Amino acid sequence: MRQSQLFTKTRKDVSKSEEATNARILLKAGYIDQLMAGVYTYLPLGYRVIRNIERIVREEMNAIGGQEILMPALHPKSVWEETGRWDTIDVLYRFTTHYTGMEVALGSTHEEIVTPTAKKFVASYKDLPFATYQIQTKFRDEKRAKSGVLRGREFIMKDLYSFHTSEEDLDAYYEKAIEAYHRVYKRLGIGSTTYKTYASGGTFSKYSHEFQTLSPVGEDTVYVCHDCKIGVNEEIIHEMDGCPECGAKLEQTTAIEAGNIFKLKTKFSDSFGLSFTDKDGTEKPVYMGCYGIGISRAMGVITEFFAEGDSKMTWPEEVAPFKVHILALNTDKEDVMNTAEKLYQDLSSTGTEVLYDDRDERPGSKFSDADLIGIPHRVVVSSRSLEQGGVEYNGEVISLPDLLTKLSA
Amino acid sequence: MRQSQLFTKTRKDVSKSEEATNARILLKAGYIDQLMAGVYTYLPLGYRVIRNIERIVREEMNAIGGQEILMPALHPKSVWEETGRWDTIDVLYRFTTHYTGMEVALGSTHEEIVTPTAKKFVASYKDLPFATYQIQTKFRDEKRAKSGVLRGREFIMKDLYSFHTSEEDLDAYYEKAIEAYHRVYKRLGIGSTTYKTYASGGTFSKYSHEFQTLSPVGEDTVYVCHDCKIGVNEEIIHEMDGCPECGAKLEQTTAIEAGNIFKLKTKFSDSFGLSFTDKDGTEKPVYMGCYGIGISRAMGVITEFFAEGDSKMTWPEEVAPFKVHILALNTDKEDVMNTAEKLYQDLSSTGTEVLYDDRDERPGSKFSDADLIGIPHRVVVSSRSLEQGGVEYNGEVISLPDLLTKLSA
Repeated sequence: MRQSQLFTKTRKDVSKSEEATNARILLKAGYIDQLMAGVYTYLPLGYRVIRNIERIVREEMNAIGGQEILMPALHPKSVWEETGRWDTIDVLYRFTTHYTGMEVALGSTHEEIVTPTAKKFVASYKDLPFATYQIQTKFRDEKRAKSGVLRGREFIMKDLYSFHTSEEDLDAYYEKAIEAYHRVYKRLGIGSTTYKTYASGGTFSKYSHEFQTLSPVGEDTVYVCHDCKIGVNEEIIHEMDGCPECGAKLEQTTAIEAGNIFKLKTKFSDSFGLSFTDKDGTEKPVYMGCYGIGISRAMGVITEFFAEGDSKMTWPEEVAPFKVHILALNTDKEDVMNTAEKLYQDLSSTGTEVLYDDRDERPGSKFSDADLIGIPHRVVVSSRSLEQGGVEYNGEVISLPDLLTKLSA
Repeated sequence: MRQSQLFTKTRKDVSKSEEATNARILLKAGYIDQLMAGVYTYLPLGYRVIRNIERIVREEMNAIGGQEILMPALHPKSVWEETGRWDTIDVLYRFTTHYTGMEVALGSTHEEIVTPTAKKFVASYKDLPFATYQIQTKFRDEKRAKSGVLRGREFIMKDLYSFHTSEEDLDAYYEKAIEAYHRVYKRLGIGSTTYKTYASGGTFSKYSHEFQTLSPVGEDTVYVCHDCKIGVNEEIIHEMDGCPECGAKLEQTTAIEAGNIFKLKTKFSDSFGLSFTDKDGTEKPVYMGCYGIGISRAMGVITEFFAEGDSKMTWPEEVAPFKVHILALNTDKEDVMNTAEKLYQDLSSTGTEVLYDDRDERPGSKFSDADLIGIPHRVVVSSRSLEQGGVEYNGEVISLPDLLTKLSA
């Protein structure tokens, strides 16, 4: 894409009330726009990142047999009464519609929807196991929404639900999901710093697990073993003598929750009467698991991890809005513009995603914009580089054919 | 995909209260599930259709320079007060959040969001023109929601907004958008029966336009010229002497609105003070257009058009959930299952999307399920077809290599 066509620009006028680095960088770079506290528009560059994150998550969920669906945001009161959660979830937006007079909630999670839907298709053990997921917008009426896209009132989430004939089958799938989660974080570029942690299992399981990305700005306190890359959440640290996997002493740190998985067991199946007839003819409850990843939050986590201060960012290649950023410096020079244009065309024709800064701007402002936007591969075309026989990449001048070989998709 | 793994099944227990053909077919085929009136879950097959429709719309909007973004559903009261529409749109869901006490609306349209966002990036004529769009979930508190996915309380829509320095530039882009819309409907399989119609322009334009798909179940009355494939909506028929493009007498019929486009001119720019400095140094208002297509509604329109009664459907190839449906009939016969399996593998390996009915079901129920599911290319593998030297396709027995040539992606 030609940067002169991009309707967003980098901005300097970012509100001082934005405390979070991710919000400041993403606002300044023109990735997001804030509509109200905790509610953001994803602008062209930002939405390209979101869609890349979605693609990675989708591929990994498909790889563990997840079948993609899309459930509604608007829920009738009845399903939330069925589980007793209508009144107990503070952050659940619930209201009476003024025109048709219905009591509804905006989905903050979807066990209340997916369980009755599953019930329509499950009768026998032959209909199990299966897993289904969605990538969908969720709503939470957060009291405090000051962490940028890390904690939104409206946010994008992937939630997968699995259905099983037995606790053993749930346990086996849960382990597969953990592996898939590790693959997701690796591809997002935060694999080395995202630890599986033991968290409270609520009323129905001994533990749940979270995936916590270590970060100085994390809202969560966790206790970790860096050798195992395993941790324990604060709420259950008193139950633990050390790392649950090696017994070593744990180190306190802060982290951002990047995912959470739960064995729901029969909690929701019991509420909605989701059962199946087993091989022996007896009726049994379905065992369920649920597995969440915040998509928009992941964008914030990645930003926090890869930002250098308030004005520089480098996106990991698989999530970057473009792979290559071409900066044409001397826009009044015909040979510079011709070379830059040719490079843009040649790279694009191989399927490489390129942002081409063809704007009539000073070099300094092109460089500072490129620092903010954070595209991983930067190529500079200037009169000087052409005199030296090529274009500048990674601090060296290289020829166009060599560059094409390096950067083509 | 193996049909034995698909968690949904065709259903017979569809509520008699579903009046619309699209809802009955889509529910029976397991494409959608109803959560409440006008609110549906898109199940795996249905969501594949939705994503195909989205892909087509996205490609055509990108082709006219649309830059994709994602705006929020949750809107503060303030922006709707700015345009005076807070109290005037009946179907706008608006409520006070019980936990944080904010007055918010759920977006039924996004002029109130996109205009102030554009204002942050537009200063000079150099920043114009541009177009931006989203594919997003919208909410309308409809009194009557009995048309299946044709009129939902929650639905998926593409809305594009264009921004211009002059009315002439808006007019030129508007014509480009009309061409893009025709390409979309053609690819959706409803091009021949979707007419551009003249509709009321509201307070700010002489006309707006709609794209109306002729249908006996359409809620709209339109007056059309079949030669020009042009029509006039009922609300302005008294202003017309005949077809606006050829003068011919118009014929009354019913239709479903499949898209609508408006020249907003400066209505919203004026409300939000969206202006630019022109070449001559004067400050001028930005001219805007808006262009909508209902994505989930399109699924309903296509269903209404291609359904034959209540139990048979054939999806157009570009939107079908799979391109090929393989039915293995004699599942107890090793040669049948081996051939079907090989065909499934071979087609899949070329990138062809295949649903393989490997279930242990009677032939009659496989055929009636396939009729409902409506995948355009059906291949039957049976003992009889193998005796005759191949598989059955389009009523003939053909060899596997010939079939692969015909159906490979």
